[in-house]
Amino acid sequence: MRLKLYELVGANDRRFSPYCWRVRMALAHKKLPADFIPCKFTDKHVIAFSGQTKVPVLVDGDDAISDSWAIACHLEDKYPDRPLLFGPGHGRPLTKFFNSWADSEINPVLLRMVVRDICDCVDPVDRDYFRQTREARLGRTLEEVQAERPVYMERLQQLLAPVRTLLENHPYLCGETPAYADYILFGTFQWVRCVSPLEILKTSDPLYAWRERLLDAFGAMARQHSFTG
Amino acid sequence: MRLKLYELVGANDRRFSPYCWRVRMALAHKKLPADFIPCKFTDKHVIAFSGQTKVPVLVDGDDAISDSWAIACHLEDKYPDRPLLFGPGHGRPLTKFFNSWADSEINPVLLRMVVRDICDCVDPVDRDYFRQTREARLGRTLEEVQAERPVYMERLQQLLAPVRTLLENHPYLCGETPAYADYILFGTFQWVRCVSPLEILKTSDPLYAWRERLLDAFGAMARQHSFTG
Repeated sequence: MRLKLYELVGANDRRFSPYCWRVRMALAHKKLPADFIPCKFTDKHVIAFSGQTKVPVLVDGDDAISDSWAIACHLEDKYPDRPLLFGPGHGRPLTKFFNSWADSEINPVLLRMVVRDICDCVDPVDRDYFRQTREARLGRTLEEVQAERPVYMERLQQLLAPVRTLLENHPYLCGETPAYADYILFGTFQWVRCVSPLEILKTSDPLYAWRERLLDAFGAMARQHSFTG
Repeated sequence: MRLKLYELVGANDRRFSPYCWRVRMALAHKKLPADFIPCKFTDKHVIAFSGQTKVPVLVDGDDAISDSWAIACHLEDKYPDRPLLFGPGHGRPLTKFFNSWADSEINPVLLRMVVRDICDCVDPVDRDYFRQTREARLGRTLEEVQAERPVYMERLQQLLAPVRTLLENHPYLCGETPAYADYILFGTFQWVRCVSPLEILKTSDPLYAWRERLLDAFGAMARQHSFTG
Protein backbone atom coordinates (compact mmCIF):
# COMPACT_ATOMS: atom_id res chain seq x y z
CA MET A 1 0.00 0.00 0.00
CA ARG A 2 1.30 3.41 -0.98
CA LEU A 3 2.71 5.58 1.80
CA LYS A 4 0.84 8.68 2.92
CA LEU A 5 2.46 11.76 4.39
CA TYR A 6 0.28 14.30 6.15
CA GLU A 7 2.14 17.58 5.86
CA LEU A 8 1.65 21.22 6.69
CA VAL A 9 0.08 23.44 4.05
CA GLY A 10 -0.18 27.23 3.93
CA ALA A 11 -1.97 29.66 1.66
CA ASN A 12 -1.76 28.87 -2.07
CA ASP A 13 -0.95 25.23 -1.33
CA ARG A 14 2.50 26.22 -0.04
CA ARG A 15 4.40 23.39 1.73
CA PHE A 16 6.91 25.00 4.06
CA SER A 17 7.37 22.93 7.24
CA PRO A 18 11.07 22.16 7.88
CA TYR A 19 10.13 18.85 9.48
CA CYS A 20 7.95 17.81 6.54
CA TRP A 21 10.79 18.69 4.16
CA ARG A 22 13.10 16.38 6.08
CA VAL A 23 10.64 13.57 5.47
CA ARG A 24 10.02 14.51 1.82
CA MET A 25 13.75 14.33 1.15
CA ALA A 26 14.08 11.06 3.11
CA LEU A 27 11.28 9.45 1.09
CA ALA A 28 12.95 10.54 -2.15
CA HIS A 29 16.32 9.24 -0.89
CA LYS A 30 14.71 5.86 -0.16
CA LYS A 31 12.95 5.99 -3.55
CA LEU A 32 9.59 5.48 -1.83
CA PRO A 33 6.65 7.10 -3.60
CA ALA A 34 4.03 8.64 -1.33
CA ASP A 35 0.83 10.62 -1.40
CA PHE A 36 1.12 14.01 0.25
CA ILE A 37 -1.96 15.09 2.14
CA PRO A 38 -2.14 18.77 3.02
CA CYS A 39 -3.05 19.67 6.58
CA LYS A 40 -3.44 23.18 7.99
CA PHE A 41 -2.31 24.13 11.52
CA THR A 42 -5.93 24.04 12.68
CA ASP A 43 -6.80 20.80 10.86
CA LYS A 44 -6.17 18.77 14.01
CA HIS A 45 -9.13 16.49 13.14
CA VAL A 46 -7.41 15.35 9.93
CA ILE A 47 -4.61 13.63 11.88
CA ALA A 48 -6.64 12.78 15.01
CA PHE A 49 -6.72 9.11 13.87
CA SER A 50 -2.97 8.96 14.57
CA GLY A 51 -3.32 10.16 18.15
CA GLN A 52 -1.14 13.14 17.21
CA THR A 53 -1.74 16.86 16.92
CA LYS A 54 1.24 17.78 14.75
CA VAL A 55 2.44 16.95 11.27
CA PRO A 56 4.38 15.29 9.75
CA VAL A 57 2.50 12.03 10.21
CA LEU A 58 3.48 9.11 7.99
CA VAL A 59 1.03 6.28 7.37
CA ASP A 60 2.75 3.09 6.28
CA GLY A 61 0.30 0.19 6.20
CA ASP A 62 -1.00 -0.20 9.74
CA ASP A 63 1.60 2.16 11.22
CA ALA A 64 1.02 5.86 11.79
CA ILE A 65 4.26 7.54 12.84
CA SER A 66 4.66 11.16 13.86
CA ASP A 67 7.79 13.25 14.48
CA SER A 68 10.27 13.55 11.64
CA TRP A 69 13.07 11.75 13.50
CA ALA A 70 10.82 8.78 14.35
CA ILE A 71 9.69 8.68 10.72
CA ALA A 72 13.30 8.64 9.46
CA CYS A 73 14.12 5.78 11.86
CA HIS A 74 11.01 3.89 10.70
CA LEU A 75 12.02 4.25 7.04
CA GLU A 76 15.60 3.17 7.75
CA ASP A 77 14.50 0.12 9.76
CA LYS A 78 11.65 -0.99 7.52
CA TYR A 79 13.51 -0.42 4.23
CA PRO A 80 17.14 -1.33 5.03
CA ASP A 81 17.78 -2.50 1.46
CA ARG A 82 17.08 0.98 0.11
CA PRO A 83 19.78 3.72 0.20
CA LEU A 84 20.71 4.35 3.83
CA LEU A 85 19.74 7.58 5.58
CA PHE A 86 22.16 7.22 8.49
CA GLY A 87 24.81 4.88 7.15
CA PRO A 88 26.15 2.01 9.23
CA GLY A 89 27.77 2.08 12.66
CA HIS A 90 27.71 5.34 14.58
CA GLY A 91 25.81 7.07 11.82
CA ARG A 92 22.43 6.94 13.55
CA PRO A 93 23.38 8.37 16.98
CA LEU A 94 25.56 11.05 15.41
CA THR A 95 22.76 12.01 13.03
CA LYS A 96 20.40 12.10 16.00
CA PHE A 97 22.72 14.58 17.68
CA PHE A 98 22.72 16.70 14.52
CA ASN A 99 18.92 16.53 14.47
CA SER A 100 18.59 17.63 18.11
CA TRP A 101 21.17 20.36 17.60
CA ALA A 102 19.33 21.75 14.56
CA ASP A 103 16.03 21.66 16.48
CA SER A 104 17.35 23.33 19.63
CA GLU A 105 19.90 25.78 18.20
CA ILE A 106 19.29 26.54 14.52
CA ASN A 107 15.51 26.42 14.10
CA PRO A 108 14.68 28.76 17.02
CA VAL A 109 17.05 31.40 15.61
CA LEU A 110 15.63 31.14 12.11
CA LEU A 111 12.05 31.12 13.41
CA ARG A 112 12.66 34.52 14.97
CA MET A 113 14.10 35.85 11.70
CA VAL A 114 11.00 35.02 9.64
CA VAL A 115 8.15 34.56 12.11
CA ARG A 116 6.22 37.60 10.83
CA ASP A 117 6.73 36.43 7.26
CA ILE A 118 5.40 32.99 8.13
CA CYS A 119 2.22 34.57 9.42
CA ASP A 120 1.58 35.94 5.93
CA CYS A 121 2.16 32.51 4.40
CA VAL A 122 -0.09 30.35 6.53
CA ASP A 123 -3.61 29.67 5.36
CA PRO A 124 -5.91 32.61 6.25
CA VAL A 125 -7.90 30.38 8.62
CA ASP A 126 -4.66 29.60 10.54
CA ARG A 127 -3.50 33.20 10.99
CA ASP A 128 -5.05 33.91 14.39
CA TYR A 129 -3.96 30.51 15.70
CA PHE A 130 -0.41 31.04 14.47
CA ARG A 131 -0.10 34.55 15.88
CA GLN A 132 -1.58 33.65 19.26
CA THR A 133 0.46 30.49 19.84
CA ARG A 134 3.74 32.01 18.63
CA GLU A 135 3.34 35.29 20.48
CA ALA A 136 2.57 33.34 23.66
CA ARG A 137 5.69 31.21 23.12
CA LEU A 138 7.98 34.13 22.21
CA GLY A 139 6.58 36.58 24.75
CA ARG A 140 6.41 39.44 22.23
CA THR A 141 4.58 40.36 19.04
CA LEU A 142 5.72 38.71 15.83
CA GLU A 143 6.70 42.15 14.54
CA GLU A 144 8.89 42.88 17.57
CA VAL A 145 10.67 39.54 17.26
CA GLN A 146 11.34 39.77 13.54
CA ALA A 147 12.59 43.35 13.92
CA GLU A 148 15.65 41.92 15.66
CA ARG A 149 16.59 39.97 12.57
CA PRO A 150 20.14 41.42 12.31
CA VAL A 151 21.01 40.09 15.78
CA TYR A 152 19.73 36.63 14.90
CA MET A 153 21.50 36.71 11.54
CA GLU A 154 24.83 37.23 13.29
CA ARG A 155 24.11 34.41 15.71
CA LEU A 156 23.05 32.14 12.85
CA GLN A 157 26.33 32.64 11.01
CA GLN A 158 28.27 31.69 14.17
CA LEU A 159 26.13 28.59 14.68
CA LEU A 160 26.69 27.45 11.10
CA ALA A 161 30.50 27.59 11.39
CA PRO A 162 30.89 23.90 12.41
CA VAL A 163 28.70 22.88 9.48
CA ARG A 164 30.84 24.81 7.02
CA THR A 165 33.93 22.84 8.10
CA LEU A 166 32.23 19.72 6.72
CA LEU A 167 32.05 21.21 3.24
CA GLU A 168 35.79 21.93 3.01
CA ASN A 169 36.55 18.57 1.43
CA HIS A 170 33.22 17.09 0.40
CA PRO A 171 30.10 18.27 -1.45
CA TYR A 172 27.68 17.13 1.27
CA LEU A 173 27.61 17.16 5.07
CA CYS A 174 27.65 13.36 5.00
CA GLY A 175 30.50 13.12 2.48
CA GLU A 176 30.36 12.32 -1.23
CA THR A 177 26.61 11.76 -1.32
CA PRO A 178 23.84 13.36 0.75
CA ALA A 179 22.14 11.56 3.61
CA TYR A 180 19.75 12.39 6.40
CA ALA A 181 21.95 14.96 8.19
CA ASP A 182 21.97 16.91 4.92
CA TYR A 183 18.18 16.73 4.74
CA ILE A 184 17.81 17.92 8.34
CA LEU A 185 19.55 21.21 7.66
CA PHE A 186 18.21 21.48 4.13
CA GLY A 187 14.67 21.27 5.52
CA THR A 188 15.40 24.29 7.67
CA PHE A 189 16.80 26.30 4.77
CA GLN A 190 13.92 25.24 2.53
CA TRP A 191 11.45 26.42 5.19
CA VAL A 192 12.98 29.93 5.11
CA ARG A 193 13.12 29.85 1.32
CA CYS A 194 9.40 29.05 1.16
CA VAL A 195 8.15 31.69 3.58
CA SER A 196 10.35 34.73 3.08
CA PRO A 197 12.28 36.72 0.47
CA LEU A 198 15.12 36.83 3.02
CA GLU A 199 18.39 35.35 1.71
CA ILE A 200 20.28 33.88 4.64
CA LEU A 201 23.32 32.70 2.64
CA LYS A 202 25.78 34.66 0.55
CA THR A 203 26.51 33.17 -2.86
CA SER A 204 30.17 32.81 -1.78
CA ASP A 205 29.17 30.66 1.23
CA PRO A 206 29.93 26.95 0.71
CA LEU A 207 26.49 26.30 2.19
CA TYR A 208 24.95 28.20 -0.72
CA ALA A 209 26.44 25.78 -3.29
CA TRP A 210 25.49 22.85 -1.04
CA ARG A 211 21.86 24.05 -0.89
CA GLU A 212 21.87 24.45 -4.69
CA ARG A 213 22.95 20.81 -5.03
CA LEU A 214 20.07 19.69 -2.83
CA LEU A 215 17.59 21.91 -4.67
CA ASP A 216 18.65 20.01 -7.81
CA ALA A 217 18.41 16.58 -6.15
CA PHE A 218 15.63 14.12 -6.97
CA GLY A 219 14.62 15.87 -10.17
CA ALA A 220 14.77 19.33 -8.58
CA MET A 221 11.84 18.34 -6.40
CA ALA A 222 12.45 21.10 -3.84
CA ARG A 223 13.38 23.90 -6.24
CA GLN A 224 9.83 24.33 -7.50
CA HIS A 225 8.77 25.23 -3.95
CA SER A 226 9.79 28.75 -2.97
CA PHE A 227 8.49 32.07 -1.66
CA THR A 228 7.76 33.31 -5.18
CA GLY A 229 6.66 29.89 -6.42
CA MET B 1 58.89 2.80 16.78
CA ARG B 2 56.81 3.72 19.80
CA LEU B 3 54.47 6.72 19.41
CA LYS B 4 55.22 9.94 21.25
CA LEU B 5 52.60 12.43 22.38
CA TYR B 6 53.68 15.90 23.41
CA GLU B 7 51.02 17.11 25.80
CA LEU B 8 50.31 20.06 28.03
CA VAL B 9 51.52 19.88 31.63
CA GLY B 10 50.68 22.12 34.57
CA ALA B 11 51.98 22.42 38.10
CA ASN B 12 52.50 19.10 39.93
CA ASP B 13 52.68 17.24 36.60
CA ARG B 14 48.95 17.80 36.01
CA ARG B 15 47.72 16.88 32.50
CA PHE B 16 44.57 18.87 31.84
CA SER B 17 44.31 19.87 28.16
CA PRO B 18 40.94 18.81 26.68
CA TYR B 19 42.57 18.29 23.29
CA CYS B 20 45.35 16.12 24.72
CA TRP B 21 42.72 14.04 26.55
CA ARG B 22 40.93 13.41 23.26
CA VAL B 23 44.17 11.99 21.89
CA ARG B 24 44.97 10.00 25.05
CA MET B 25 41.57 8.31 24.85
CA ALA B 26 41.94 7.72 21.09
CA LEU B 27 45.33 6.05 21.59
CA ALA B 28 43.87 3.80 24.29
CA HIS B 29 40.88 2.99 22.05
CA LYS B 30 43.29 1.97 19.28
CA LYS B 31 45.38 0.02 21.82
CA LEU B 32 48.46 1.98 20.78
CA PRO B 33 51.03 2.47 23.54
CA ALA B 34 52.76 5.84 23.57
CA ASP B 35 55.24 7.89 25.53
CA PHE B 36 53.76 11.08 26.94
CA ILE B 37 56.11 14.02 26.92
CA PRO B 38 55.11 16.94 29.12
CA CYS B 39 55.24 20.39 27.61
CA LYS B 40 54.42 23.67 29.35
CA PHE B 41 52.61 26.55 27.61
CA THR B 42 55.91 28.41 27.28
CA ASP B 43 57.91 25.36 26.17
CA LYS B 44 57.49 26.30 22.51
CA HIS B 45 61.07 25.13 21.79
CA VAL B 46 60.18 21.55 22.79
CA ILE B 47 57.78 21.16 19.86
CA ALA B 48 59.53 23.57 17.47
CA PHE B 49 60.82 20.56 15.48
CA SER B 50 57.23 19.91 14.39
CA GLY B 51 56.73 23.41 13.01
CA GLN B 52 53.92 23.84 15.54
CA THR B 53 53.46 26.05 18.58
CA LYS B 54 50.66 24.12 20.26
CA VAL B 55 50.22 20.68 21.76
CA PRO B 56 49.06 18.01 21.25
CA VAL B 57 51.72 16.93 18.77
CA LEU B 58 51.93 13.24 17.91
CA VAL B 59 55.15 11.78 16.55
CA ASP B 60 54.58 8.56 14.63
CA GLY B 61 57.77 7.45 12.85
CA ASP B 62 58.64 10.25 10.44
CA ASP B 63 55.31 12.02 10.87
CA ALA B 64 54.69 14.84 13.34
CA ILE B 65 50.98 15.69 13.46
CA SER B 66 49.43 18.51 15.44
CA ASP B 67 45.78 19.32 16.16
CA SER B 68 43.70 16.67 17.92
CA TRP B 69 41.32 16.18 14.96
CA ALA B 70 44.20 15.68 12.51
CA ILE B 71 45.78 13.24 14.96
CA ALA B 72 42.55 11.22 15.25
CA CYS B 73 42.28 11.06 11.45
CA HIS B 74 45.91 9.97 11.21
CA LEU B 75 45.35 7.16 13.73
CA GLU B 76 42.18 6.00 11.97
CA ASP B 77 43.83 5.98 8.53
CA LYS B 78 47.15 4.46 9.57
CA TYR B 79 45.67 1.81 11.88
CA PRO B 80 42.39 0.83 10.19
CA ASP B 81 42.59 -2.73 11.55
CA ARG B 82 42.42 -1.42 15.13
CA PRO B 83 39.05 -0.50 16.73
CA LEU B 84 37.50 2.31 14.71
CA LEU B 85 37.26 5.83 16.11
CA PHE B 86 34.68 7.09 13.62
CA GLY B 87 33.03 3.93 12.38
CA PRO B 88 32.30 3.37 8.70
CA GLY B 89 30.30 5.51 6.28
CA HIS B 90 29.12 8.90 7.50
CA GLY B 91 30.83 8.44 10.83
CA ARG B 92 33.82 10.62 10.08
CA PRO B 93 32.04 13.76 8.76
CA LEU B 94 29.41 13.57 11.49
CA THR B 95 32.11 13.18 14.14
CA LYS B 96 33.92 16.15 12.59
CA PHE B 97 30.77 18.20 13.02
CA PHE B 98 30.58 17.12 16.68
CA ASN B 99 34.25 18.08 17.10
CA SER B 100 33.76 21.54 15.58
CA TRP B 101 30.58 22.06 17.61
CA ALA B 102 32.34 21.17 20.87
CA ASP B 103 35.22 23.49 20.01
CA SER B 104 33.08 26.46 19.02
CA GLU B 105 30.13 26.12 21.43
CA ILE B 106 31.01 24.02 24.48
CA ASN B 107 34.68 24.72 25.18
CA PRO B 108 34.40 28.54 25.13
CA VAL B 109 31.58 28.40 27.70
CA LEU B 110 33.47 26.03 29.99
CA LEU B 111 36.69 28.01 29.61
CA ARG B 112 34.91 31.04 31.06
CA MET B 113 33.60 29.00 33.97
CA VAL B 114 37.06 27.86 35.12
CA VAL B 115 39.56 30.25 33.56
CA ARG B 116 40.69 31.66 36.93
CA ASP B 117 41.00 28.14 38.32
CA ILE B 118 43.17 27.12 35.36
CA CYS B 119 45.56 29.95 36.13
CA ASP B 120 46.21 28.33 39.52
CA CYS B 121 46.88 24.96 37.89
CA VAL B 122 49.35 25.92 35.19
CA ASP B 123 53.04 25.67 35.93
CA PRO B 124 54.26 28.75 37.86
CA VAL B 125 56.47 29.76 34.92
CA ASP B 126 53.37 29.79 32.65
CA ARG B 127 51.17 31.95 34.86
CA ASP B 128 51.98 35.35 33.41
CA TYR B 129 51.75 33.99 29.87
CA PHE B 130 48.40 32.36 30.58
CA ARG B 131 46.91 35.44 32.24
CA GLN B 132 48.12 37.85 29.56
CA THR B 133 47.04 35.80 26.55
CA ARG B 134 43.63 34.85 28.02
CA GLU B 135 42.82 38.32 29.31
CA ALA B 136 43.69 39.75 25.90
CA ARG B 137 41.43 37.17 24.23
CA LEU B 138 38.53 37.57 26.69
CA GLY B 139 38.81 41.34 27.05
CA ARG B 140 38.48 41.23 30.86
CA THR B 141 40.36 39.93 33.87
CA LEU B 142 40.18 36.21 34.58
CA GLU B 143 38.42 37.03 37.84
CA GLU B 144 35.74 39.11 36.10
CA VAL B 145 35.06 36.37 33.59
CA GLN B 146 34.85 33.51 36.10
CA ALA B 147 32.57 35.58 38.35
CA GLU B 148 29.85 35.16 35.70
CA ARG B 149 29.93 31.42 36.15
CA PRO B 150 26.19 31.07 36.91
CA VAL B 151 25.27 32.61 33.54
CA TYR B 152 27.62 30.24 31.70
CA MET B 153 26.35 27.27 33.72
CA GLU B 154 22.82 27.93 32.51
CA ARG B 155 23.99 28.24 28.91
CA LEU B 156 26.03 25.05 29.24
CA GLN B 157 23.02 23.04 30.37
CA GLN B 158 21.04 24.26 27.33
CA LEU B 159 23.90 23.40 24.98
CA LEU B 160 24.17 19.89 26.39
CA ALA B 161 20.48 19.08 25.78
CA PRO B 162 21.03 17.52 22.32
CA VAL B 163 23.81 15.35 23.77
CA ARG B 164 21.54 14.04 26.52
CA THR B 165 19.04 12.78 23.93
CA LEU B 166 21.75 10.37 22.74
CA LEU B 167 21.94 8.72 26.14
CA GLU B 168 18.22 7.90 26.33
CA ASN B 169 18.68 4.48 24.75
CA HIS B 170 22.40 3.78 24.75
CA PRO B 171 25.27 4.01 27.26
CA TYR B 172 27.54 6.06 24.96
CA LEU B 173 27.07 8.94 22.53
CA CYS B 174 28.15 6.59 19.73
CA GLY B 175 25.87 3.72 20.81
CA GLU B 176 26.71 0.53 22.66
CA THR B 177 30.45 1.22 22.80
CA PRO B 178 32.33 4.51 23.02
CA ALA B 179 34.08 6.06 20.05
CA TYR B 180 35.72 9.33 19.16
CA ALA B 181 32.67 11.57 19.61
CA ASP B 182 32.53 10.30 23.19
CA TYR B 183 36.19 11.15 23.70
CA ILE B 184 35.72 14.66 22.28
CA LEU B 185 33.20 15.63 24.94
CA PHE B 186 34.87 13.54 27.62
CA GLY B 187 38.10 15.46 27.04
CA THR B 188 36.23 18.68 27.79
CA PHE B 189 34.73 17.31 31.02
CA GLN B 190 38.06 15.84 32.06
CA TRP B 191 39.69 19.24 31.55
CA VAL B 192 37.24 20.85 33.99
CA ARG B 193 37.65 17.94 36.40
CA CYS B 194 41.43 18.41 36.43
CA VAL B 195 41.52 22.16 36.98
CA SER B 196 38.62 22.97 39.29
CA PRO B 197 36.56 21.67 42.20
CA LEU B 198 33.50 22.82 40.23
CA GLU B 199 31.02 20.01 39.54
CA ILE B 200 29.24 20.77 36.26
CA LEU B 201 26.99 17.69 36.28
CA LYS B 202 24.36 16.60 38.78
CA THR B 203 24.55 12.95 39.78
CA SER B 204 21.04 12.47 38.33
CA ASP B 205 22.20 13.71 34.89
CA PRO B 206 22.63 10.88 32.35
CA LEU B 207 25.87 12.59 31.37
CA TYR B 208 27.19 11.99 34.89
CA ALA B 209 26.81 8.21 34.56
CA TRP B 210 28.26 8.41 31.04
CA ARG B 211 31.32 10.29 32.34
CA GLU B 212 31.72 7.68 35.10
CA ARG B 213 31.80 4.93 32.47
CA LEU B 214 34.55 6.74 30.59
CA LEU B 215 36.49 7.41 33.79
CA ASP B 216 36.45 3.63 34.26
CA ALA B 217 37.47 2.88 30.67
CA PHE B 218 40.92 1.59 29.74
CA GLY B 219 41.81 0.55 33.29
CA ALA B 220 40.43 3.76 34.80
CA MET B 221 43.22 5.65 33.05
CA ALA B 222 41.50 9.04 33.33
CA ARG B 223 40.14 8.65 36.85
CA GLN B 224 43.53 9.00 38.48
CA HIS B 225 43.80 12.49 36.98
CA SER B 226 41.70 15.02 38.85
CA PHE B 227 41.78 18.36 40.63
CA THR B 228 42.61 16.71 43.92
CA GLY B 229 44.85 14.07 42.33
